[in-house]
Amino acid sequence: MIVEILAIGTEVVDGDVVNTNAAWLSQRMIELGHEVRFHSAVPDDEVLMLDALARAADRAQVVLVTGGLGPTVDDFTLEVAAKFFQVPLELHQESLERIRGFFKKFNRAMSSNQERQAMLPKGATVLPNKLGTAPGAVFSLAESQFAFFPGVPKEMQEMFGNFSRLLPKPATELSRRRKVLRCFGLPEGQMDAALRDLFKGRMEIHGTQVGFRVRFPTIDLRLRSAAASASEAENNLSTAEALIREKLGDCIFGEGEASLEQVVGALLRQKQLRLAVAESCTGGLLASLITDVSGASEYFVLGVVAYANESKLQLLEVKPESIEKFGAVSSEVALEMARGIRKMSGADYGVAITGIAGPTGGSAEKPIGTVHIAVAYPTGEWEKNYLFPFGRDRFKQVAAATALDRLRRILLANPS
Amino acid sequence: MIVEILAIGTEVVDGDVVNTNAAWLSQRMIELGHEVRFHSAVPDDEVLMLDALARAADRAQVVLVTGGLGPTVDDFTLEVAAKFFQVPLELHQESLERIRGFFKKFNRAMSSNQERQAMLPKGATVLPNKLGTAPGAVFSLAESQFAFFPGVPKEMQEMFGNFSRLLPKPATELSRRRKVLRCFGLPEGQMDAALRDLFKGRMEIHGTQVGFRVRFPTIDLRLRSAAASASEAENNLSTAEALIREKLGDCIFGEGEASLEQVVGALLRQKQLRLAVAESCTGGLLASLITDVSGASEYFVLGVVAYANESKLQLLEVKPESIEKFGAVSSEVALEMARGIRKMSGADYGVAITGIAGPTGGSAEKPIGTVHIAVAYPTGEWEKNYLFPFGRDRFKQVAAATALDRLRRILLANPS
Repeated sequence: MIVEILAIGTEVVDGDVVNTNAAWLSQRMIELGHEVRFHSAVPDDEVLMLDALARAADRAQVVLVTGGLGPTVDDFTLEVAAKFFQVPLELHQESLERIRGFFKKFNRAMSSNQERQAMLPKGATVLPNKLGTAPGAVFSLAESQFAFFPGVPKEMQEMFGNFSRLLPKPATELSRRRKVLRCFGLPEGQMDAALRDLFKGRMEIHGTQVGFRVRFPTIDLRLRSAAASASEAENNLSTAEALIREKLGDCIFGEGEASLEQVVGALLRQKQLRLAVAESCTGGLLASLITDVSGASEYFVLGVVAYANESKLQLLEVKPESIEKFGAVSSEVALEMARGIRKMSGADYGVAITGIAGPTGGSAEKPIGTVHIAVAYPTGEWEKNYLFPFGRDRFKQVAAATALDRLRRILLANPS
Repeated sequence: MIVEILAIGTEVVDGDVVNTNAAWLSQRMIELGHEVRFHSAVPDDEVLMLDALARAADRAQVVLVTGGLGPTVDDFTLEVAAKFFQVPLELHQESLERIRGFFKKFNRAMSSNQERQAMLPKGATVLPNKLGTAPGAVFSLAESQFAFFPGVPKEMQEMFGNFSRLLPKPATELSRRRKVLRCFGLPEGQMDAALRDLFKGRMEIHGTQVGFRVRFPTIDLRLRSAAASASEAENNLSTAEALIREKLGDCIFGEGEASLEQVVGALLRQKQLRLAVAESCTGGLLASLITDVSGASEYFVLGVVAYANESKLQLLEVKPESIEKFGAVSSEVALEMARGIRKMSGADYGVAITGIAGPTGGSAEKPIGTVHIAVAYPTGEWEKNYLFPFGRDRFKQVAAATALDRLRRILLANPS
């Protein structure tokens, strides 16, 4: 079916918010076999909203509307939608109870404007919101189906699952398969070059469309095949995947939505190993990524963010003479930190990161972006230095991801 | 003038690329005093492009088109535009030379399709592209001005400067002021309720438009005024700001792009105080936020991510009997952690967070989302518990932000 994605919100057309919802929804709708033809956005303005809804009804069979479901006075998407559909707003009791429950659950007073969120166009199907207060709604008008989601990406994404089950199957009879290969360790240009020989036409390998998507510091390879039969689609995709894996090897760390920290966590759990980390320049990001994985407490013991030199010394038993002789950002100190955190925590694996995030602190010999990563483990040690001159934020991200990726490779190569 | 921003490209409507160009252009056009009313995107499809151009000509005075100026066969924006303007395409000699020079510079062979990029609608003003091969073009049609930019953000942004000089000053002589107030500690609904009495019309206070924008876990209040004179605009905005500040008090932690961690960092630096943190359930996120601020090493000494009970005990000198009697997630343990990290680091301020991130580990008495936050400082101690049942990711974010916000309030209230 033909799809339009309509964002409602002054913050979107004013450029205060980048409309990532449109891209996310497009990807999902395409996966479901639909055709996205239009993205549009209008401000919180009744006349412009009515016009946009009318236009969408004219040209699309599925209209996905995001934004304007909040409790504040500038959130009135459903009010305008009801006007457009020529139906009244009706209190949806279940949603009201849900909203009340939400406030009760964390002991907050509920303001009366919050009740407005339970007012839905009469005849609409409700899309419950598990993560927030604003319910969504689905409404059919003539040939078109309208779905209303909150603008908050997480809530919208969570609710999309329920919506997609309401959607009729697309008319096209093609079987579709898709897979995402998650990669780390090669920049996009080098990945493209590595795969160049495989590409037929634009970005096609064995009847499978291949697309790059940078999700810094990782890169996704998105594979998509469509064929007359399911087995042919499956076969095309797995052939393409095998060819790609041959070229990229262990740069592919996972599939689908798997993160480096999830892959590392699964390996640690499987091997029943425990991990501790000592960081300076990444400032806690490595520990925070590791603990983003639920169940991390099974294998993650301790993190130390040693930001001052004294802390490195005292806590991690880094030798003062190592810092004096080689500097805090050095192979020697990285290794001593890894050994120190492993020893003090009693963990099987100790990982250490020390470096210069910038914007100050660099020198000719050790420029901003220099980072040393070390791993101490039962059967050995590993250490390497890198230069990631990408600015403070990205430096932290790529340094932490590099440590995780190395941990992954060592875990894969070692029996315990 | 009324502005529409139109993206052309299948990769945009397919969601392979997030349309950041629209937000960037919106911000620039608003700074120049224009009003952006529409964002839209269509695929590389002649019929849909012609329709989108016609629609834009109808409703906007300035139409900014991005994408489809590349050398490949699916780049034909200017071809379609010429058709729409009913003029032929013409070779622009200077642009051709520029493209040739570009290839020469990099010692690359120029493919013949690259020459196509020098074909512009007759009568168009050229926008030279310093960073790439595709020139842009500006074309006037009746009341509307159309500008065509490449989809590559850097090239588009560089070329926008030249384009903006071609733009007539906005017809309206209004002076504009804008300000963002960053808030934490009240949910959106309660902020709205607190301000409700001030609102005239939908969201206006003293000639100033007010908008909410959730940037979880913080909320922005966006203020905008427009008036005949600069002083009136200024005056309206500052009056509205004063009224809002009276209602929201110290929920407003900063202005513009300031983050909680920046505000806290500035206070610590100004007071020459040093900070250390001990976290369990936030798993390093608090330390990572603190160290996202450049120069954090001036005041941030040490972070400990105590994920296992033994680590809390040993390292932070939490009493075993406190854990036994009250549990690891308790006021007593939070306070002991804050004291412990303060003592072991020698910092002036010790902050501790202990809680249950979920999805497992909750009980009837201490449900998932329970968190205790404690601060130990030279002249006192503070401790409080909260319930944030928002799922693991958001739990970590709101717990870390709550700790930062409390630190901010204590720093503001205490002389040292």
